[in-house]
Amino acid sequence: MPTVRIPHLHAVILAGGSGTRFWPLSRELSPKQFVDIFGGVSLITHAVRRVASLAEDGGVHVLTNQQLLDELRNHLKAQAELADVSIDYLAEPIPRNTAAAIALAAAHLLSLNPDAIMVVLPSDHLLKDDERWERTLRVAARAAAQGRLVTLGLQPSYPETGYGYIHAGAPIPGVLEGDIQAHEVTAFMEKPDRATAERFLADGGYLWNSGMLVARADVVLTELARAGERAATPDSAGSAKIAATARDIAAFGPAAWTSAEAIARFAALPSVPFDKAALEVSPTVAVVPTDIAWSDVGSLLALEHVAPADEDGNVFAGNVVDIDSHDSIVYSQDRLVATIGLESLMVVDTVDATLVAPKERAQDVRLMVDKLRAAGAPEIVESRHSLRPWGSWTRLVKGRDFQVKTIDVLPGQRLSLQSHEHRSEHWVVVEGRGRITRGDEVVELGPNESSYIPIGTVHRLENIGDTVLRIVEIAVGDYLGEDDITRLADDWRR
Amino acid sequence: MPTVRIPHLHAVILAGGSGTRFWPLSRELSPKQFVDIFGGVSLITHAVRRVASLAEDGGVHVLTNQQLLDELRNHLKAQAELADVSIDYLAEPIPRNTAAAIALAAAHLLSLNPDAIMVVLPSDHLLKDDERWERTLRVAARAAAQGRLVTLGLQPSYPETGYGYIHAGAPIPGVLEGDIQAHEVTAFMEKPDRATAERFLADGGYLWNSGMLVARADVVLTELARAGERAATPDSAGSAKIAATARDIAAFGPAAWTSAEAIARFAALPSVPFDKAALEVSPTVAVVPTDIAWSDVGSLLALEHVAPADEDGNVFAGNVVDIDSHDSIVYSQDRLVATIGLESLMVVDTVDATLVAPKERAQDVRLMVDKLRAAGAPEIVESRHSLRPWGSWTRLVKGRDFQVKTIDVLPGQRLSLQSHEHRSEHWVVVEGRGRITRGDEVVELGPNESSYIPIGTVHRLENIGDTVLRIVEIAVGDYLGEDDITRLADDWRR
Repeated sequence: MPTVRIPHLHAVILAGGSGTRFWPLSRELSPKQFVDIFGGVSLITHAVRRVASLAEDGGVHVLTNQQLLDELRNHLKAQAELADVSIDYLAEPIPRNTAAAIALAAAHLLSLNPDAIMVVLPSDHLLKDDERWERTLRVAARAAAQGRLVTLGLQPSYPETGYGYIHAGAPIPGVLEGDIQAHEVTAFMEKPDRATAERFLADGGYLWNSGMLVARADVVLTELARAGERAATPDSAGSAKIAATARDIAAFGPAAWTSAEAIARFAALPSVPFDKAALEVSPTVAVVPTDIAWSDVGSLLALEHVAPADEDGNVFAGNVVDIDSHDSIVYSQDRLVATIGLESLMVVDTVDATLVAPKERAQDVRLMVDKLRAAGAPEIVESRHSLRPWGSWTRLVKGRDFQVKTIDVLPGQRLSLQSHEHRSEHWVVVEGRGRITRGDEVVELGPNESSYIPIGTVHRLENIGDTVLRIVEIAVGDYLGEDDITRLADDWRR
Repeated sequence: MPTVRIPHLHAVILAGGSGTRFWPLSRELSPKQFVDIFGGVSLITHAVRRVASLAEDGGVHVLTNQQLLDELRNHLKAQAELADVSIDYLAEPIPRNTAAAIALAAAHLLSLNPDAIMVVLPSDHLLKDDERWERTLRVAARAAAQGRLVTLGLQPSYPETGYGYIHAGAPIPGVLEGDIQAHEVTAFMEKPDRATAERFLADGGYLWNSGMLVARADVVLTELARAGERAATPDSAGSAKIAATARDIAAFGPAAWTSAEAIARFAALPSVPFDKAALEVSPTVAVVPTDIAWSDVGSLLALEHVAPADEDGNVFAGNVVDIDSHDSIVYSQDRLVATIGLESLMVVDTVDATLVAPKERAQDVRLMVDKLRAAGAPEIVESRHSLRPWGSWTRLVKGRDFQVKTIDVLPGQRLSLQSHEHRSEHWVVVEGRGRITRGDEVVELGPNESSYIPIGTVHRLENIGDTVLRIVEIAVGDYLGEDDITRLADDWRR
């Protein structure tokens, strides 16, 4: 069945978080949504692909923060399967939780289309079953067109205590497609204790609150404003201010969002989730129950989905050799991890850091990240591997005055025409075929050929072969930061 | 008190084992005795230094196997504190347990000195308290001079079930120095169960069998022969053959020990520990009880000695950040290891492999090594870091047709004059100052300068500065093994 686009639908993907509970797989500059361990493409690529074909004109708005904007743009531009998707990048003034972020996105969409319906999706979930997903979204959009704030409710498969629940009420007449039917909402429930979660599961009328919202952009703002006027809960007291501020800031266009004034006004807003600020206190809501295959990637326990469990309940991925472990997760990106007799433990190994913890403490990885941040550990900021729109690089070693990287350039791609003020570079081609620009000179090099780029010399590296071009780069200089780069021309307008 | 050399004393250091229970810190080509985590120098350096000043003429015989001989020689030659020690390197024909090894060493020493007294030391123990150690050895040598096989017995400090015990009998009149006194032996005991070990500890007359032997070389051979004639136990049945074969092989000199004939004859010997083959069945033995501070480095549990335990009983060494662990060992050579809530676990992290296991399974690391060997894992053979007499190298990455290393050359040192048949090398100096020979050309290079060594070109690298010379080497070729090297001149006659 060909996908039918939903009129006025705009997708808003929230991609601002760094995912501290996913460390060491996520880093501040390479957050969870970039992680590509589930099915080979990143979570954000999954999220964009999932809605691009449904949204009007294929338009997708990715809302992130200033720090991540460049990385995110580089990352998504490098995804071949998103080549025909038009992505609108938006940087919120400063991170201020989802009520402020969704309000700003709503105000922005209204300026594009007064009838805009927005579907707001987090970027850190896995979702299969495309046909049901599309049908669910179409039903939600129809309920949204009636002026409701619509949330997607997932059929619980076990008594999870980490999510909020929604109790579904009467079906909304006529808002259905096959077995997918919109319902009134009887109640929103906080994260329950174990006994309550078991009761919810047995009852059958309770749904997990997925955090996925579908609503008209104008309704988002008016419901926030009304929630603020009623101020029924402390969390909704500032909602009117959030709506008004979002309208004011959006009026100046996204380029002005990171102005000092916008930042100051956004910073003055309460930091509240949209659910608390509006959804849970609004009289005009709906829920669409759905049983799509959905997985939270909220913590490292999501690694249980990267491979089938063995007969002892272990999930091993990568270069792992085990003796006698049970119920454990051992994930290695590259290096050898040898484990003996582990019980309900998780071991996550990356090129520069290893985490070992009981599975039941998966939530406490965030405490570790706090501790590492306080200690100034570089391993929370970035990894030794960095994706680029033209390929990637991996740092092999960094000394005081030198640094060695491998640089992989994809076929047909080239780096920007650039120069450095503080470092010289020695390049040796080890695989593939490249064209190197060095000042006025252009040479073609193959394996075992080298070039030297002195400080200040304008240069460029280009893959002219059919396979990956790999070079080893030895940079020597008194400053080796990535920001020592002057770009004269760039295929990605960086 | 200046050290007094012991007449006729020759030290024999057994350095053949690879220490599989110490993986990943030990590797087949970089075995446990090379590990330098205890006080900064390797275990074998400790062992050599400990006896060099006591042995006649400072002579030390290191007995190892053919596979390790070069690595061992390189390693010990690079130890500045052993510069004035004359080391005699001996390679046993093939590994055949300690009875054969000690017999061969004894026969060799007899050819050097008919009155030789040998002290046989394993190379995988830590020992402090030099003054008591020297006195212990002098007392043992005096008992040995009477024609006894003398073993050193350690005062137990806890009820260890992993060692054999010795019950000390009457003092041997006149063989003492201060409070160190040689005793008759009442009995040798196998490894006890826990209750027995506790009884031994409470009794006070039982000693740990240290595996350290002091005896006249001729007595070693005659006692082996007599044990074989009596054949009191299955383990002693082949002892006479061991003694006779050792005399035969030693007669041809160490250079002939690795001849096909010597290997065949050695291979036909029973593989028995010397204790079983002779010591425990000999009527002419003695023990010298001593309470020197001694630590077995038999398993990774020895890592408990690398740093003081914290108040929760944890020992952390290296780049380790922990939350809430107890009674655990976390050792990192280089990378970040983050641990949460571990209980009695050990995590050992090296540049290319990580081991995670409960402490109580420390002995089972050998099973892991067996499993890795069966899987052909390169991580059991060697690490990415290799010591050389002139310095060291570290492999950063190895691709199919290229390899990147950092090479550190110590001040005043140089590599051999060499060439390769299968690889070219690109060198970039990143620290220090070097002189590079390339064919007929000799150039001096500093940081940010480079050289290219084509296949087949004779070349040499030399440190001509006062600090370490560090270069990055990119080798490109269809074969990258360390054995593709033709040496034309070498300061170490390799």
